[in-house]
Formats: sequence, C-alpha cells, structure tokens
Amino acid sequence: MTTMTKSHMVVAQNASGRSMNVPIYRFKGAVPGPTVYIQSSIHGAEVQGNVVIYQLIQALKEQDVAGEIILVPNCNPIGTNIKAGEYTLGRFDPVNGTNWNRGYFFDEEKVYAFADTVNENDDISTIRDDFLTYWAECIAEKLASPWGLGLAQQLNLKLQQLAVNADFVLDLHNGPVSTRHVYIPEYAKDSATLFNFPHCIFIPNKFAGALDEATFCPWWTLQDALSARFGRSIQFGIEAFTLEMGSQEVIQFSEGKVDAKSILTYLTAKNALPHSSLAPAAMKRVGVMLKDYKTLFTQWGGMVEYCVKPGDWVKRGETIARVLNIDELDTEAGCFAVEAPCDLIPMLHFPSASVLSGTQLFKVFTNYFTLTE
Amino acid sequence: MTTMTKSHMVVAQNASGRSMNVPIYRFKGAVPGPTVYIQSSIHGAEVQGNVVIYQLIQALKEQDVAGEIILVPNCNPIGTNIKAGEYTLGRFDPVNGTNWNRGYFFDEEKVYAFADTVNENDDISTIRDDFLTYWAECIAEKLASPWGLGLAQQLNLKLQQLAVNADFVLDLHNGPVSTRHVYIPEYAKDSATLFNFPHCIFIPNKFAGALDEATFCPWWTLQDALSARFGRSIQFGIEAFTLEMGSQEVIQFSEGKVDAKSILTYLTAKNALPHSSLAPAAMKRVGVMLKDYKTLFTQWGGMVEYCVKPGDWVKRGETIARVLNIDELDTEAGCFAVEAPCDLIPMLHFPSASVLSGTQLFKVFTNYFTLTE
Amino acid sequence: MTTMTKSHMVVAQNASGRSMNVPIYRFKGAVPGPTVYIQSSIHGAEVQGNVVIYQLIQALKEQDVAGEIILVPNCNPIGTNIKAGEYTLGRFDPVNGTNWNRGYFFDEEKVYAFADTVNENDDISTIRDDFLTYWAECIAEKLASPWGLGLAQQLNLKLQQLAVNADFVLDLHNGPVSTRHVYIPEYAKDSATLFNFPHCIFIPNKFAGALDEATFCPWWTLQDALSARFGRSIQFGIEAFTLEMGSQEVIQFSEGKVDAKSILTYLTAKNALPHSSLAPAAMKRVGVMLKDYKTLFTQWGGMVEYCVKPGDWVKRGETIARVLNIDELDTEAGCFAVEAPCDLIPMLHFPSASVLSGTQLFKVFTNYFTLTE
Amino acid sequence: MTTMTKSHMVVAQNASGRSMNVPIYRFKGAVPGPTVYIQSSIHGAEVQGNVVIYQLIQALKEQDVAGEIILVPNCNPIGTNIKAGEYTLGRFDPVNGTNWNRGYFFDEEKVYAFADTVNENDDISTIRDDFLTYWAECIAEKLASPWGLGLAQQLNLKLQQLAVNADFVLDLHNGPVSTRHVYIPEYAKDSATLFNFPHCIFIPNKFAGALDEATFCPWWTLQDALSARFGRSIQFGIEAFTLEMGSQEVIQFSEGKVDAKSILTYLTAKNALPHSSLAPAAMKRVGVMLKDYKTLFTQWGGMVEYCVKPGDWVKRGETIARVLNIDELDTEAGCFAVEAPCDLIPMLHFPSASVLSGTQLFKVFTNYFTLTE
Repeated sequence: MTTMTKSHMVVAQNASGRSMNVPIYRFKGAVPGPTVYIQSSIHGAEVQGNVVIYQLIQALKEQDVAGEIILVPNCNPIGTNIKAGEYTLGRFDPVNGTNWNRGYFFDEEKVYAFADTVNENDDISTIRDDFLTYWAECIAEKLASPWGLGLAQQLNLKLQQLAVNADFVLDLHNGPVSTRHVYIPEYAKDSATLFNFPHCIFIPNKFAGALDEATFCPWWTLQDALSARFGRSIQFGIEAFTLEMGSQEVIQFSEGKVDAKSILTYLTAKNALPHSSLAPAAMKRVGVMLKDYKTLFTQWGGMVEYCVKPGDWVKRGETIARVLNIDELDTEAGCFAVEAPCDLIPMLHFPSASVLSGTQLFKVFTNYFTLTE
Repeated sequence: MTTMTKSHMVVAQNASGRSMNVPIYRFKGAVPGPTVYIQSSIHGAEVQGNVVIYQLIQALKEQDVAGEIILVPNCNPIGTNIKAGEYTLGRFDPVNGTNWNRGYFFDEEKVYAFADTVNENDDISTIRDDFLTYWAECIAEKLASPWGLGLAQQLNLKLQQLAVNADFVLDLHNGPVSTRHVYIPEYAKDSATLFNFPHCIFIPNKFAGALDEATFCPWWTLQDALSARFGRSIQFGIEAFTLEMGSQEVIQFSEGKVDAKSILTYLTAKNALPHSSLAPAAMKRVGVMLKDYKTLFTQWGGMVEYCVKPGDWVKRGETIARVLNIDELDTEAGCFAVEAPCDLIPMLHFPSASVLSGTQLFKVFTNYFTLTE
Repeated sequence: MTTMTKSHMVVAQNASGRSMNVPIYRFKGAVPGPTVYIQSSIHGAEVQGNVVIYQLIQALKEQDVAGEIILVPNCNPIGTNIKAGEYTLGRFDPVNGTNWNRGYFFDEEKVYAFADTVNENDDISTIRDDFLTYWAECIAEKLASPWGLGLAQQLNLKLQQLAVNADFVLDLHNGPVSTRHVYIPEYAKDSATLFNFPHCIFIPNKFAGALDEATFCPWWTLQDALSARFGRSIQFGIEAFTLEMGSQEVIQFSEGKVDAKSILTYLTAKNALPHSSLAPAAMKRVGVMLKDYKTLFTQWGGMVEYCVKPGDWVKRGETIARVLNIDELDTEAGCFAVEAPCDLIPMLHFPSASVLSGTQLFKVFTNYFTLTE
Repeated sequence: MTTMTKSHMVVAQNASGRSMNVPIYRFKGAVPGPTVYIQSSIHGAEVQGNVVIYQLIQALKEQDVAGEIILVPNCNPIGTNIKAGEYTLGRFDPVNGTNWNRGYFFDEEKVYAFADTVNENDDISTIRDDFLTYWAECIAEKLASPWGLGLAQQLNLKLQQLAVNADFVLDLHNGPVSTRHVYIPEYAKDSATLFNFPHCIFIPNKFAGALDEATFCPWWTLQDALSARFGRSIQFGIEAFTLEMGSQEVIQFSEGKVDAKSILTYLTAKNALPHSSLAPAAMKRVGVMLKDYKTLFTQWGGMVEYCVKPGDWVKRGETIARVLNIDELDTEAGCFAVEAPCDLIPMLHFPSASVLSGTQLFKVFTNYFTLTE
C-alpha cells in the first residue's frame, strides 16, 4: 500500500534567529518504480504550483504509487514572505539581488572525473547508482564549504539534496503575465507530448544555475562522455523540467486541477502510477528551440498597454503594445505602437504598465514548429 | 477660440540634484466658465488616469471650452518611478511610508477665522473670491514653513496651488484589482448621476489629507459656518471627487475613452463645454454611505484565490475567497473558504495571492442603495 | 524569591500561514511592587534595545524584584525580517506604509465616559483598578472588530494587552544616526533625572498612536477630568517613555550594559528593585519642549556630508552639512553649506548621504534648557 | 593649455518617459599623453567617489594635463535614486536583481579572432589602434542587438563606450562598512604601489562582468595570444582598477581630498600630469591574491555586533563578532562569539546588525603579504 508521510526541513534562519522550514510530502509505493521530485515557488511570487501540488496530493491519496513521489510546495520560505508594496518580491534575495533559482550545483569537471572511473563492462544501473552516490557527495561537500555559502545557494543545495535521487524532477514556476509553457532538455524531447502543455521550449546542455539544468546537465554530460568513450549510445532516462503554470501572484484551484492532471499524465507514462490510465490530451502543441525564444527589450520608457495576450498567434507588423508619453499628450508623439518584428507567439509580458528602458516587454516564440495538431 | 498651452512645474529634486517636474496642460476658453482641475497618478502605480487625460485632451482639442480646464497627468514623478520588483511602489514615499495622498492642506480653524470676517451683506461671489485669495495665502504660507516640509507634503501643496481656484476638482486613482467607483461629498450627491460610474461612495465633511477632501472641506465648512450664522443656506457649488478608474498597474486606451466620456459628461452638466450635448448614460448606479463601505481584513496568513470579482453582487454566505495552507495540504485544513458576512458588492480586492494576517482582502459596499436603475 | 518565566505570544501569520511570535520574559517578585513593561524593536531596524533587554535580564537574574517586570525583545517579528538591500525595512509595513508604532489604542471619549462613573468618595486604588479593567476591555473590544484590523494595529494591540496593567512602560527605540534621548510626558518631568539620559523631550497630552502615548494619555486624561470635577489634584503615577538608544542598524553589548544601568536606576527609584542602590548619575542633562524639537527638511536634493554629530552643541550659522551637486562639480555651485538657523543640538540625522528634497536632514533641540549640570 | 568641457549623455529613460543622463567632465591637454577614464557610483549607494571626482576636478583646474582625463561622477542615475527606506537600493536593478556592475562587454573569442589578423611585423601602436577600433565596433554591435538589451547592460555599454579608448580606467566604488582597498590585475601589480592604498587585491584574467575586467581582459588576452604566437612578450600597458573608497552611504570632503591625491599620484606616475611632482606615500601596503580574499558567510541568523574594524589585523581565534539570540536571552545560548578561523584582515563587514543565515558577514584578507613597509 502507498504510504503518505509529511516532514519539515530547515533551510534557513531569519534575523530573529528563527528556523525557516519547508514542508515535504512523500508518497511511497509498495511496489518499485521511479523516484519523482516536484517542488514549487522557488520564486516567491510564483504560487500556482502550490495549488498544483495540493491537487496532486488529493489525487495521489486516491491511488497507488510505484516508487516514490516527493512534493515540496512553497520551497522558499524567505522569498515567499518578502513584500514590497502589495506584491511579493520573490524573484531574488532582497539583500543582494541573487536570483533564488541560480545556485544549484553542477560541475562539468567533476562529471568527467567520474566518467573516467567507469569501466566499459559496468552495467548501466551500476553506473547510475555509483554516480548518484558520487553526486550526492559532491553536493554535500559544496554545502559544507569551510567559509560558508550565500543564502540562495544554501537553500538551493538543500533542496537539491532532496531531488538528487529522482528520475524525474519537475520545478513549478510562473511567468509574470503568462500562458502555460514548459522547458524540456533536447534529449528528452519525446516527453514534450506527455504533458498537456501547448508550448514547449527545447533547451541545450548548458548550465545556468536552475534546478532543471542542475538535474539533467550532469546526466547528459555523463551520457555524452560515456557514449563517446564506448562508441555506443548510453542513456540514463533522467528527465527534468521547468513548468510555467501561467501568471504569478495568482492561484486558481480549478486550473490547478487541470495542471495536476497534466503532471499525472506524464507520471503515468513514466510508470509512477500503475493503475492510472491517463493519456496525453489531443491538442495543439508547438515547440521552439531556446535560441529562438526571444526577449523583446524596450529602448524607451513609458506607460504601456499590452495589446496581445500570451498564447496569441501574432503576425509580423501587428501592434503588440501601445505606449503613452506623458509629456506629449497633445502631439502625435503622445502615443505610439510597438509592432511585432516577425511572426511570434508571446509566452509572457511584463506585469506592469510602467516600464523603463531596457525592460523585458515580451518573451516570444519565433521560428516555432508544430509538435501535435 | 480655445487655446491649449503646455508647461512644466518642478515639484521635487532627486538625490542626483535633478529637478523633477510634472506636465501641465491647459485649455482656456474664449468665453467665461468654470475652472476645472484634473490630475492623475498621485499614487504611482495608478496609471489609467494618464490615459484618461490623454483621451480628454484628444476630445478637448476638438471643441470649445468655457472657462479653463487644467490637466496634470502623472502628477507624482517620484512615486511613478520607484520599482520594487516588476511593480511600481507608488502608494507611499519609500523613505518613510508617507502616503502620497495625505499631505494636502486644510485647517478648520482658519476657515472659521475667515468666516468671522464675512459680512451678511457680502454677495456670494465676493465671499468666494475673498476666500480663494485667503486660502491660496494659507497654502503658500504652509509651503514656506521655515523648517521645511516632507517630500509628499511639498508635492501635495504644489499641486494644490494649481487646483486652488478650481470649481471642480477630479483626482484620478485606481484600486488594486478594482471596479470603477467614485467618492462624492454628501452635499454634492446630485452629481453622482452626472458621471457614468456604477458605484458611488458618499463621504462626510471629514479631512484625512486627500485632495478631494482638501478641496471640498474648506468650502463645506465655510458654507456651514455662514449658513448657521446668517440663518440661510449658502452654497458655493465647489465640487471635488476621487475617481477610481479600475485596477492599478494597467492602462487601456479603449477604456480610457469610456472614462473620458464619463468625465466630459460631468463637465457638460457643469457648463464647461458649451457645445457638448453629452448626457449621463442610462445605467444602474448604486450608492453607499462611507460608514457602510467596509474593509475586510484577514485574521490569518496564506495563499488566496479571489472567488468573486469587483462589481459582483454577492449574497451573505457565498464563498468570496479560498485559502491554501501550505503545511496542511494532506488534511482537511489544506484549504478553507471565506464567506461573505453579509450581502455586499466588492469594489476591490488585494492584488496578490500571498497574504499576511491583517491584509485588506476586500473593500465592499454593504447596505448599498440604488441611485438609478 | 523572584521567579523568571519565558513564554511566546503569536502576533501575526505570514503568507506561508506560519505563526509569528514574540518572546516574553517575566520576572515576578515574591513581594508586591509595581508592574513594569519594557519592549524593544517595534521598528525592525532599531535593535539596540534587544541588547539592552539582554543586559537587563542578566542583571535581574542576580537580584530580587518587587512586583513584576515584563520584557518583550524583538516585539515585531515581521518588521525585523524585511530586508531591502542590506538594511532592514523596519519602520513601516512594506505592504501599505503603515508605521509600526501608530496603531495602539486610545479613545478620549471612552475615558470621559469612565470618568463620569467615578464617585467622589472612591479611593484612588479602586478607581485605578476599575479603570484598568475597563481599559483592558476597550482594547479587547477593538481587537475583536468584526471586520478585522490591519497588521500593524493587530500587532500593536496585542502588545498593548501585555502592557495594559503596567505602572511603568518603556518602549526602546533608536534614531537613524542618533545620540541617546528620551521622550517624557510633561506631568512626569521629575522622572527625567531618574535616567542617565543627556537629552529629554517633554511631550504634551496628545495622542499620535505610539505606545508611550497610548499608555499615558488615558491616565493623564482621566487625572485631568477627575481633578477638574473634584477640584483637587488626582494622580495615578503611571509613567511611560520612549527611549532612543542611539543609532539603528547597530548593536553594542557594552553600551547595552550602560543603557541597562540607566533603566535599572529608574526602576530603583520606582521601588521595583528593593535591594538596588543605584542612583542617577551626576551628569549634564538638557531638556526641550516638544514644540521646540524641530525637524529640518531639505528644499533640495543632493549628496550630503553631515558636519556635526548628534549631541554636539551647535551655534547659529555653523555649517551643519555640506552638499555636493553632481552637475556642477566644475563651478561654484558644485558644493554648498547648510548652516544652523539658530543655536541647536542635533539629536539625529538622516542615515544616508543621498537625499531627495523634503528629507528629514536633522532633528534638533532648539530653545533647550538645563535640567542638571 | 588644458581645456575643461562638460556634457551630458543619456543612458536610460524612466517610466515617465524622461531621459536620464550622466554628466561628463573632460580635461583635454595641449600636449599628448594618455587617456584616463574615471567613473563613480555605478552602485548607487557608493557615493564617496563622487566627492573624489569633485576633488580631482578642483585639482585638475589648477594644472596642465597631458592627453585627456574623462570623469563621470554619479554614472548610474537610476541606481542612485532608488530608495528603500532611508537607504539607497543601489547595488542592483530593483526590477530583476541584476547587479549594475556585471553587464560590460567582453568576448574572448572576438579577441582571438582579432589576434589571428595581426602580422608579426605590425608595430605595437598599430596593433593597439586597430584593436581599439575593432573593440569599439564590437561594443557598438552588442549595444545594437536587434531584440534589445536589459537596462543594466545598456547603461554599462554606454559607459564602456566612453572608456574604450582609455589607457587607464578607474572605477570608484565603496564597500558596505569598509576600509580602502583596490583591485589590481596581476599583470599590473607594480602599479599597486603607485596609489596610496593600504590594501591591494591581485586578480587574474577572468571576466565576471565588471568594468575593470571588461577593460583589462581584452588587452590581457590579446597580449597573451600575441606573445604566445610571436614568442616574445607583448605589452600594451593598459591598466584598469576598481578602487574601494571606504564605506557606502557616506561622503566626506576631507577624505575625498586624500583619495584624490592618491589618484593624482598614480596619474603622475603614468605621465598624465606633466607638472605634478606627487610621489607615492611611504606607507604600509599589504597584498593578497584573489583566491585568498575570502567571504565569511553565516550559518545562522541573528543580531550581530561587529567586534573588529575593517583594516584591523586579527589573529586566529579572536572574537570578530558577537551574536544575540532573541529567544534565549535568559540562557547560555543568548549570546555567542564568532571567532576568526585564521589570521586575517577584514576589508569590510555587513552594514546591518540584522543578519539572516547565508549573509556575507566579513570579506577578509588571508595569506596576505607585505608590499611596502
């Protein structure tokens, strides 16, 4: 029988000296199966994932699990609780600007060092187990740095320790004003159609500090190193995704149920839910390579109306924003339009009408392609 | 012919020593008429009023004005430009928390002192002119305080000097997530139906620092003092309103046109637009006395889905919010509902799902009544 | 024997739904005596009071207490933990700008209502006990407001409930860059020399929301009402002070010991420490009436060197600040001096060189007088 | 004769649509000589450099210059003007946390591409001029990115365009609470003793985004590439430094004069001031390699007294900080000491007593060595 347990892990101490902890929910199946790790709200204002985990828990309480599913909602108790005005200043450490999602561990050299110790005859599950042990030690060693580490990095590494054994890692995020989209490592592109996400971004083996990268980069690097060395394809089947569940600062229980179903569908395909018969929805899915996922920055400051919605299919030349210039309300220059520089699908736009020069106005798909109709 | 002029007024200096100014647009008619003062964005994140002024200017360029209309968009250049995360920290001075809309001048004793100087035979326009002069001097004297004044107060008083001669003052605001509503002094309640606002809040002669109050409190106090003294009703016809044009952090040009029309309708009724034939829309309008305009504060912290929209008519007992408790996702306590304590119409709700105890969750009409069907 | 107990009181819940509490240390003597309430850090960046309470606790552990001493360090767990950059944004609620020290309860009408119920023959201790009960009920009723209350007010009222029975209330604060000074109600002016504070500000019976005022205003108002009614002086001997223990953002253990001794000296004089022989230090003390405690605001923005230190005796015309104008470094206007407009003693100055127009540059004693040489 | 000119360069637009500019002061000598670029306050709270530039200008007005000296005070008009509480939130873009000093341009591959085009017979000044032209084009191309760039990067690149022709680049910074220290590229280590800085940090050819690195990395990389290729040492003599002029949030005119003299001494040695006879002060200078410049992070949260001052020589085991634990004021755990883990010299410490876990408590020299006695 599947058992559910709940515990808490201390991840920081505040200025009052109080411990700050995260809740950990675990569903452990009676039968073997994959290990799944799901967390939400590493960026404090991105809260919909917490509802998704709530809905996942409701669903998992009703069925058997194979292997183990670990769920960590609200995984950043500091970022969740910094208000600046009515909104949550949840994207970075307010002390120093450090993005809460850039301090996970990866070190290419350490992967290569491990790869050198592998024998051609080692079977894949042995390599895998050895690397798991090795990598957990690397993380523990980093966390034990003699002069200490910054707050975001400490938090990230403690969460990474929870995720290190997982076969499948899902990090639940939101965009500012956003439609649903998912980041997928290129080697796992077949999994794009196992979720019910309409927009898929395929990313290369490049580490920038996030949890999904910190999860798949070591395995990807190891796969490539061993495949090259042994002259045959070696795959470990570890997958990690960043799922963007709509807009920040908002929760919606009914949407959370839809989101949870999308995740349960993936887990079904990955054999974590032996009695589930969920299958991916028949739906339009489009994909884009990361290099074609563009950020449109402003060259000007002003007040902006966003004229297209995330998810809209926009043609080159269409007005995507209209800008007000407060000092020219009586002239032609009082208002001007921003046009789409090419065909595009906006995934998200800036959440405020007030915009300085150099603002990320939109992030958009260009050169996108159809995955499923 | 109506002439349009534009100028700028310095209202502050920043830490670089640079002057910060506000744009002033004036339409001066060839024929006499009332003086109208309209400003927007004293709270920096409340930007829709800037678009409304833009649309007003487009409309005023096409017609004649009687008297003068003064428009000051973006009247708080400091508050508009303080970002904290992606949003605008526009409600208060970030240095000391002072609300940008609480430092206008009013002093009841000074009104009484003036009232004592009025002769029973003085005609109303003489009293009016004398008081205008007197009150302008009071404001100038305050602004010249020998030890200086705080930034918000300096800003407020400089704006008030622009507004002091006005017969009609409109201060354009927004709520957090909000429907359109307007604050109206009780003595001018007939003007409630001259705008196209569905929701009207009637406020007493009480000063809390805002521009509308700073405008009508002196006249109201003077009216009452003279009426009592001379045993007959004395009215000056000065009116001032705070107009809440929907939600903060958003501009919409098309809605701004609708909002502008609502204001032009009022100005038509007040004889500022001699050739305009705009008449108030036939629409449902409800009113509430300020004492029945309630703020619902939370007793708990958590993550909230807002289940009713501003403007909805809600029955007692209906679920207005649903709260997620991150540490109890596996139990009955994982989620609970907040119910309407009585029949109500929410005007606005908090703009973030993340809520501490003591948060203004909703502001609502209770005991509301119908003004027009 | 004196007993020490420690407990915690929940004062808020954060957005994670976690309770936030304050520590309460109580020393209860075996013999009767006054009740003393001491709190620190209602403004989150003003932390020296926490060390003072630490040093008080060390001293109180070594001696007997008469009555009870209640100590609440770090009494604002929200304000203490809001960082904005490296500093603590501790003066106001970051959501709405509400000063954390303005929401305590006082209602003059309710005091008069009570005063009307007092009989001329009631002895003073009966009046006192009855009023304590009555006032505690008033606070409880406020706290139970059916639509709820804001976060700062909830926090304030819960702390006020701890303080309501106290004869002597000390609220420990800091200035920005500041020398030690104390606020004293005019009627308790004799207590100015019972502390070892060099600077004393005498304040009238006027409520602006702070804890000291919320403590003494009701008693002062009651005293005045009963004295007037019965034609004789009625005194309850309740005293409350705001103690400014130097600069914010800094703790110093050795200074904390000095500060603690100053407080213990006062408590000795008030018979709370039966075996203590501490007597006030022979030292220079100067006083000022609140109306002569001036804030010097800037009319300009720029970068400032503060040329006098808090506590300095400054003559009219002396340079108190020097201002840099970034755009005029090559001209005479590159730098100018701010002169003292009269003889003064600065108590504090702004803690940053970067100053907008309307900044509180200095707060200063003018027309000060000597209390002790 | 040396001529002084002043101009302004637009670097951004704010949300009101207003241009934000930086002042540029240029001293151009009648005789040839090096080009010098000096800027200050890229981090908005680090303001002492503005006074240093003021003092430099006063000194330069009195003497002849060879070549050109370009001075840009207050080079970040956005960062200078973001207040969060009384302090300046000047280290990073408040919208997204981007450090204002990490967006300058460098691209190793582009240097190698240039190096490949150099002929062995080209004389060094030709190579230099060609590279200057080439590199300026690279920066211009980056700045013209078709989808735009973020605000910090736009600002950085515009400043870098001013600095690109300079032989000597000085970027004036401050630490939080800090003593004076300077970052020096290892290849220019002889210049360490040309300033009057007591503490010198030697850094390798590694780019992390700052202006000093963006200045010397291309030349260093080019030197190494050409030296390797041609088998002889090739040096261009370009130098760039980050100078830390004490503590942030403070200006001091007299100290600024001392700082200016230190810089003028360096410029004298570099032949920019033909009539100056300034020579480096005889003083103790210590150096450290970057790898031995350690950051001590906390593992705990609490309130901290800093027990050693920046610049102190501290022995292993000495108490460097004392921490208060608010919940244990009555026990042994109420206070504990942090000890120096080795012999060290603190350069700076955190500027607030309130500290979360993972805070940069101190940055310290370890394994330091004497440069001059």
